[in-house]
Amino acid sequence: MKPLVQFGTMQMLVERLLDGFVSAKEMLESGNTGIGTGAGVDGELIMLDGVAYQVDVQGHVNRVADDFPIAFGDVHQADFKPFKHFENITLEDLSKEILKEVGTKNYFFAVKMTGEFAAVETRAAAKSEKPYPGLGAIAKTQRIFDRNDVKGTMVGYFTPHVYEGVGVAGFHQHFLSDELDFGGHVLGATLKSVDVELQLLSGLTINLPMDNEDYKNADLTDLSTLNDVIHAAESAD
Amino acid sequence: MKPLVQFGTMQMLVERLLDGFVSAKEMLESGNTGIGTGAGVDGELIMLDGVAYQVDVQGHVNRVADDFPIAFGDVHQADFKPFKHFENITLEDLSKEILKEVGTKNYFFAVKMTGEFAAVETRAAAKSEKPYPGLGAIAKTQRIFDRNDVKGTMVGYFTPHVYEGVGVAGFHQHFLSDELDFGGHVLGATLKSVDVELQLLSGLTINLPMDNEDYKNADLTDLSTLNDVIHAAESAD
Repeated sequence: MKPLVQFGTMQMLVERLLDGFVSAKEMLESGNTGIGTGAGVDGELIMLDGVAYQVDVQGHVNRVADDFPIAFGDVHQADFKPFKHFENITLEDLSKEILKEVGTKNYFFAVKMTGEFAAVETRAAAKSEKPYPGLGAIAKTQRIFDRNDVKGTMVGYFTPHVYEGVGVAGFHQHFLSDELDFGGHVLGATLKSVDVELQLLSGLTINLPMDNEDYKNADLTDLSTLNDVIHAAESAD
Repeated sequence: MKPLVQFGTMQMLVERLLDGFVSAKEMLESGNTGIGTGAGVDGELIMLDGVAYQVDVQGHVNRVADDFPIAFGDVHQADFKPFKHFENITLEDLSKEILKEVGTKNYFFAVKMTGEFAAVETRAAAKSEKPYPGLGAIAKTQRIFDRNDVKGTMVGYFTPHVYEGVGVAGFHQHFLSDELDFGGHVLGATLKSVDVELQLLSGLTINLPMDNEDYKNADLTDLSTLNDVIHAAESAD
């Protein structure tokens, strides 16, 4: 069994450490499926079958170059097991069904949903430049998108609570339409007719930016407000 | 560059999830150097050159069997770089020198000290049986040992703050005497004449107990007191 492979931490995003320190090609060497964001929170990324796509702040879907710089991402090698076909269910209710099936909130696992979605709401931020702003300021640049009756794929991960600050505790999912004309960080969805697959992961591998002076010099010892900021910025519930 | 490979989490120890879920042999497949504790907090482990030793509650040093069950441990493949020779310095002051050399608290790194120690204070707990008690009750079973003018090796890891609860934030070191007659979890030390080596690590890999019903069924979502408990139980400062 393989772990979830993560590049960077959520704490880094909160602390304005938004340099791209790993390329799309390097990240895909750790797996063919994943999610992430570019340097300066440059849109929302989704990796499917070894190909990385970006949903930019205009809502456009772009296939990213091998050298596209990534500030934060999660990736794994897909080996999904079919869970169940679902019709007419909200993402919130489906998340409960998934947790019932997995039987615990204490493992990392991947989720993949393919089929027809009645409604999907997403968001994507605009790329920030140095000196990078905080996630609060970045949130003001982001745009919200929604689409009804769209065919596509939702991919993401469940992270246990104790890793909050390291990653995003709970579910964290991105969407891409089959037509490559819609996607982003998922804020909410209603599923019309979707096959759900799950993949249990053995744990987590974190890769840190080893040659980044800003990361090295940052004071990352104050955790007092970290989880509140992440939860406000990332929660899809 | 390789990551620190960790089996289990500190949260599991706090939440009385003390089953051994990985064997000494399996753990040594991820590296030849490390620290840990047995099932039920069965003594303090130190791995050097691919060999695992246990300091038990009597203070005896035992070479552990391949199938010895481990509840928590950190291991990595040694590739240390010489840092400096130190004479007559406390572990506390040396820790500051090491952090100055590494230049950041934001990376995982390994520390190895070999030579003569003027004084070393350690502790080791007694193995608990199911239903396992909390770390507070276990702390009451532990014994404190000290030794003056002892030759040996101290090995351990530095973990950045945001991983508190996942691991032990800050320094966490174990000791083994050359004569194999003294060791344990380091509470404090004064170094007489010691070579210090360091090894920067690329990040962290966590391996969770995938077939453990107690782990699966535990409620690990309340983090409110976790860090205080860990700090009280593990801090060597």
